[in-house]
Amino acid sequence: MNKKAVCIISGGMDSATAGKITKDLGFEIVAVHFNYSQRTETKELEAFREVASSLGAVNSYEINLPFFGEIGASALTDKNIAVPTGGLTEGVPITYVPFRNGIFLSIATAIAEKENCSMIVIGAVEEDSSGYPDCREEFLYSFERSSNLGTKEDTKIKIFAPLLHLTKEQIVKKAHEIGVDLSLTWSCYSNEDEACGVCDSCRLRLKGFEQAGLKDPIKYASL
Amino acid sequence: MNKKAVCIISGGMDSATAGKITKDLGFEIVAVHFNYSQRTETKELEAFREVASSLGAVNSYEINLPFFGEIGASALTDKNIAVPTGGLTEGVPITYVPFRNGIFLSIATAIAEKENCSMIVIGAVEEDSSGYPDCREEFLYSFERSSNLGTKEDTKIKIFAPLLHLTKEQIVKKAHEIGVDLSLTWSCYSNEDEACGVCDSCRLRLKGFEQAGLKDPIKYASL
Repeated sequence: MNKKAVCIISGGMDSATAGKITKDLGFEIVAVHFNYSQRTETKELEAFREVASSLGAVNSYEINLPFFGEIGASALTDKNIAVPTGGLTEGVPITYVPFRNGIFLSIATAIAEKENCSMIVIGAVEEDSSGYPDCREEFLYSFERSSNLGTKEDTKIKIFAPLLHLTKEQIVKKAHEIGVDLSLTWSCYSNEDEACGVCDSCRLRLKGFEQAGLKDPIKYASL
Repeated sequence: MNKKAVCIISGGMDSATAGKITKDLGFEIVAVHFNYSQRTETKELEAFREVASSLGAVNSYEINLPFFGEIGASALTDKNIAVPTGGLTEGVPITYVPFRNGIFLSIATAIAEKENCSMIVIGAVEEDSSGYPDCREEFLYSFERSSNLGTKEDTKIKIFAPLLHLTKEQIVKKAHEIGVDLSLTWSCYSNEDEACGVCDSCRLRLKGFEQAGLKDPIKYASL
C-alpha cells in the first residue's frame, strides 16, 4: 500500500487533528482545502496553510468552488441567511451545506487517483456534531464504495475518519496529547479577527476545551 | 414524488437524448452544465444552452470547475497530453478524467436537494462506451445510495441513466424517434468549428449514425 493520503483540511480543529493522526501513522500528506464561498473563506485558508505546513505536506491543493455561493441554501454560503448564535437545536441545522462532504470527497477521490494515494482523510465527527447527514458513518462507508467503483481498477481508496466517534472533549484531549498546535486553527462561522464565541461551531469547540479541562489558545471576542 | 429532475447536460448527443426522454416522462428539467477546463469548453457550453432551451428547462446552472485543469491527468483537461485519433484501444483510455462523473453527480445531488428534485439524469453509456469506470451501472447504483445517505431525510434521489445499456446505434435511433435535434449537439474532443471525425468520441458517434442508417446533421472537417 502506498502510504500517501489526501487530507481534507478546513483549517479547523478536527481536520488538523485528523491530519496529525495520519502523519503519525507514517503517511505522506497531500493537503486539500476547499474555498466554497463560505463566510470564513479567508480565515480558513490562512489556517489551512499553517496546518498543511505543520504537517509537512508533500503537495497542496487549494480548490475554488465558487458555485456553492450560487447554490446557497445554507447560512454558511448564503448571505441572506443569518448564522444562528442562540445555541444548538434539534434536526439538521441551517448551517448545513447541501452534500458538502460528498462534493469534497468526490474531488478528493480525483486527487487521490492522480496522486496515487491510498487514503482520503476527513475530520468528520458524527457523535458530538450538529446533525449534518454527510457526517454519518453509513454515508462515509457508502461513499468509499462509490469512490472505488468509479475509479480505475488499480486505484484503491480507503476513507479514514479517525474522529468520527469522538466527542469534542476527546478531540481536544487527543490533539493536546499528540501535539497539534490548535492556536493555528479556526472554527468560528464568522470571519472576524477574533472568534465570536457564540455560533454553534464556537460553542462546540469551547465546550470541548472546558470539558477537557484545557484552555483554548485562540482569542474570542465575547469572552 | 416531485416530478422535477436535475439533468446533467454536456451538450453531446447522449445527454441531450437522456434529457428528452426525461422531459417526455413528464418531468420539469433543471439543466446543469459543467465547465471543467475541458478542451471543448466553449463548444460544449454553446451546445448546452441550445439543448437546455429546447428542453424548456425551468432553471439552468453553469458550474465552473477550473480545478480540473489543475488536477489534469487526462487528455481532455491536460494540454500536455494529446487526444488520441488512432481509434479505440483496450483498457481505460487517456481521455478518462479522474472520477469526473462522481464529481458531477455530487454537485448534481446538492442542486437536487436545493431545488427539491427527485431525480438526477445522466447520459452515461456503459455498453458501447470507451471503458470509463465512472460510467458503470454498479458505480451509479452505489452513488445513488451515497447521495441519499449524505443528504437530508426528506431528500430522495433516484439516479436515472436511460442510455446505460444502449449502443450508439440504438441511441441515434432513439434520438431520431423521439425528435431530439442532434444538429444542436457537440461530441468531438476538439474545439474547432467543425468536428474532427477522428477522435474516439467522433468515431463512436459516426459509427452510431452509420449503423442506424442515418446521416449525422453536424459538419465534420475530415469527411
